[in-house]
Amino acid sequence: MQETIVIRTDHPNGLYDITERVRDRIAASGVKTGLVNVYVQGATAAIMIQENWDESVQNDVITLLKKLVPRGVWEHDHQDSNGDAHLKSGLIGPSETIPIINGKIGLSTWQNIFLCEFDGPREERRIVVTVFDCNAKEKRTPGSF
Amino acid sequence: MQETIVIRTDHPNGLYDITERVRDRIAASGVKTGLVNVYVQGATAAIMIQENWDESVQNDVITLLKKLVPRGVWEHDHQDSNGDAHLKSGLIGPSETIPIINGKIGLSTWQNIFLCEFDGPREERRIVVTVFDCNAKEKRTPGSF
Amino acid sequence: MQETIVIRTDHPNGLYDITERVRDRIAASGVKTGLVNVYVQGATAAIMIQENWDESVQNDVITLLKKLVPRGVWEHDHQDSNGDAHLKSGLIGPSETIPIINGKIGLSTWQNIFLCEFDGPREERRIVVTVFDCNAKEKRTPGSF
Repeated sequence: MQETIVIRTDHPNGLYDITERVRDRIAASGVKTGLVNVYVQGATAAIMIQENWDESVQNDVITLLKKLVPRGVWEHDHQDSNGDAHLKSGLIGPSETIPIINGKIGLSTWQNIFLCEFDGPREERRIVVTVFDCNAKEKRTPGSF
Repeated sequence: MQETIVIRTDHPNGLYDITERVRDRIAASGVKTGLVNVYVQGATAAIMIQENWDESVQNDVITLLKKLVPRGVWEHDHQDSNGDAHLKSGLIGPSETIPIINGKIGLSTWQNIFLCEFDGPREERRIVVTVFDCNAKEKRTPGSF
Repeated sequence: MQETIVIRTDHPNGLYDITERVRDRIAASGVKTGLVNVYVQGATAAIMIQENWDESVQNDVITLLKKLVPRGVWEHDHQDSNGDAHLKSGLIGPSETIPIINGKIGLSTWQNIFLCEFDGPREERRIVVTVFDCNAKEKRTPGSF
């Protein structure tokens, strides 16, 4: 099962919790044991697994990345002012692959799935959710042919 | 095939080699060509592929992350003193997905799989190992139904 | 479907675009909906999704990593002079897993797949490409047995 989630972002840099939307896709797939891959298209965004007790950790992620990857000092900024966004995106990476256990996403209590926006706001960030069934073989029966 | 490995950690920050335990799961699965996903539950740990000739690189990983993500300076530290652990976890990420080639894990000589503990010690770190078979289709026969 | 791509690198640090070689493997596989995992063997290299409009972002990635992970200051350097390469490799990670959508790789316009060399030049960097079919079940028919 594969579907694209579309998210609107409203800040230059921000984290957006997409966990519930991924849970919905897994429930719809009926997969009991497998993996879900969450992949953001676009070279100035990323996917991060992070705590969502409140906004403090999300703010700290933005603060840390601004410190590690300052704005406006990159070769790419001579063509385009978003060199820092590309570097943050490459450092965090565009995807996470998460187990599906007993039909539910295998996140722990404090793990949530975030879209990281590094060059917003954007009307449309497209996130591809692909669900894999680990037990396809066992679940298939002659009746299914 | 999916199983959970449980690891006890004995330091606030440390790397723990789990390669042999992942190899055992692959051998038990009988999968010849596929992928293995290794995912740690918990937003203050991570999974890293790294050299294990001796402890020097493991110590250097801890030193680097302490330098990049100092302790005690984060917004999250006002509620909980582990803001640095969440940031290290988000930067490294909770999983790795590794090919299975001819029934063996596709690591090179110097690649090993490590649990990274950033907020230990912990009695239980839970790591979900999911093995996927790339050749299920070819291997299936009418007799298997 | 699983194949190994071999790349020659010609600099100590550099990014090498392998997108077309991965696209070829997906086309050869005939998979319409699935995932492709791109995994580099070797603990001093990595795989990064990044823009390839020109070389500026690639140069900025090298500049950033040299700043974050300086050379020659690590415990591992006492045995081997490549401590920085191991740390860069662990920070970026050895693989990316990317969706396959309608038979094509699910990269956006500006996303390309790069081998990151951190300890070159090397005659041979080995990258394992594993293609998974999400629709194997639906596509299989009794005639295929």
